[in-house]
Amino acid sequence: MPDLVASRVRPGNGLPVVPAPEAERKLAIICSKSSLDMVYPGLILANAARMSGIDAMLFFTFWGLDIVTEKKVDHLRFSPVGNPSVPFPTMVAGLPGVESLATRMMKGDMSKLDIPGVREFLGLLSDSGARLYACGLAMDMFKLKREDLVPQVDGVLTAMDFFDSAEGAQIIFI
Amino acid sequence: MPDLVASRVRPGNGLPVVPAPEAERKLAIICSKSSLDMVYPGLILANAARMSGIDAMLFFTFWGLDIVTEKKVDHLRFSPVGNPSVPFPTMVAGLPGVESLATRMMKGDMSKLDIPGVREFLGLLSDSGARLYACGLAMDMFKLKREDLVPQVDGVLTAMDFFDSAEGAQIIFI
Amino acid sequence: MPDLVASRVRPGNGLPVVPAPEAERKLAIICSKSSLDMVYPGLILANAARMSGIDAMLFFTFWGLDIVTEKKVDHLRFSPVGNPSVPFPTMVAGLPGVESLATRMMKGDMSKLDIPGVREFLGLLSDSGARLYACGLAMDMFKLKREDLVPQVDGVLTAMDFFDSAEGAQIIFI
Repeated sequence: MPDLVASRVRPGNGLPVVPAPEAERKLAIICSKSSLDMVYPGLILANAARMSGIDAMLFFTFWGLDIVTEKKVDHLRFSPVGNPSVPFPTMVAGLPGVESLATRMMKGDMSKLDIPGVREFLGLLSDSGARLYACGLAMDMFKLKREDLVPQVDGVLTAMDFFDSAEGAQIIFI
Repeated sequence: MPDLVASRVRPGNGLPVVPAPEAERKLAIICSKSSLDMVYPGLILANAARMSGIDAMLFFTFWGLDIVTEKKVDHLRFSPVGNPSVPFPTMVAGLPGVESLATRMMKGDMSKLDIPGVREFLGLLSDSGARLYACGLAMDMFKLKREDLVPQVDGVLTAMDFFDSAEGAQIIFI
Repeated sequence: MPDLVASRVRPGNGLPVVPAPEAERKLAIICSKSSLDMVYPGLILANAARMSGIDAMLFFTFWGLDIVTEKKVDHLRFSPVGNPSVPFPTMVAGLPGVESLATRMMKGDMSKLDIPGVREFLGLLSDSGARLYACGLAMDMFKLKREDLVPQVDGVLTAMDFFDSAEGAQIIFI
């Protein structure tokens, strides 16, 4: 990737500004879910992309908006209900306390693998140059304002804005 | 986007027809689920793409075939079970009546945001030039015929046909 | 597609080896779930891609790692819980035995459509030239070693390796 990154033509570098979308590799991840087992894949993929010199943006929409909501980010949970990979029968998985247990187990698994908690992970991604955007429609749906979101959020986008930003990107919907 | 749209070369416009996939931005959305919270993201993204002048197709497969099935489209539901974003504990979420309540709440949320019901939304998408395709394999699986689908469906595709149509597209699997 | 395939430049064919990512169509499928209704779409799409001459790779991560885990591949299940398309109310869907029934029904549906079981399907994909990769992080999470995986797995990749391999590919996250 280094040669690709080096060959980027950006405004203000003394070269004429020419459209060169094909010269820049981009990734756009749409995060639509809040269960921890679907939150971490998005964060991990975005991080790997940045480490590979790939431009990365995350778009938080629907339940995924919880990930960047100040009051929710530290309380995201993992539901084992309806997931055949998890060794709890559904009747047990649905019992009070089992979701909390499963959440603690998943957080423990992540921690053992040196994967940071979600809030810290958002900070690392932001510091690495990934851009974090909240979906305006989802904010209306959940009656949230900009100040309800974590400070790492770079802005609020409509779906049309998203497509503008994601031109030429590989898109991953989680 | 306007310049991209203007530069499209289409059959019948007096210019020689040349293959120019790189000149046309395309989006292909695979809709595989029928729960309303995963139905709306596909419809909203397809609509935003069309409004941005992006060619858009939707491919309805597996449970997503319900979205374009005449007898199901008006009765799509939202299941809060196993979704940690929804303020119902699983034991409650699974009770008879709670799914209906959650479905009504989600439809109400959408309506307040001026988002049309699914059947109407399919019509708007079709009118906007988005193409709607049903998956042939899923139709066999659910023993459905063409006449069981809503009229907005443009045709039935195999997975191979899908890839032909989606050449050069950004693909979103929901 | 035929012209595209014919125009591929590969090492060893007597032509100079030049980087031509734009001349080769690639598909990368990330399989993150183990429920049969989300396993089959990935396998079917990968197979269709190969039949269309598209380079295909599958990356098995999170719960999707079960698909290529020797002890799990023959025992993948389908959970109808929280899926409004399935004609079991949640309180029933969660009862012991109902998941087994739903799993048998889905396997029966697939078999009637001449779709092979998952282990056989992996073999067919591998024979067709699709490459199967396990996610190293998920292997650590589930404490699995290479010998715990089915022999069709071509290797273990980090998320960064994945992005290297998926350069220029259409990406599908399931």
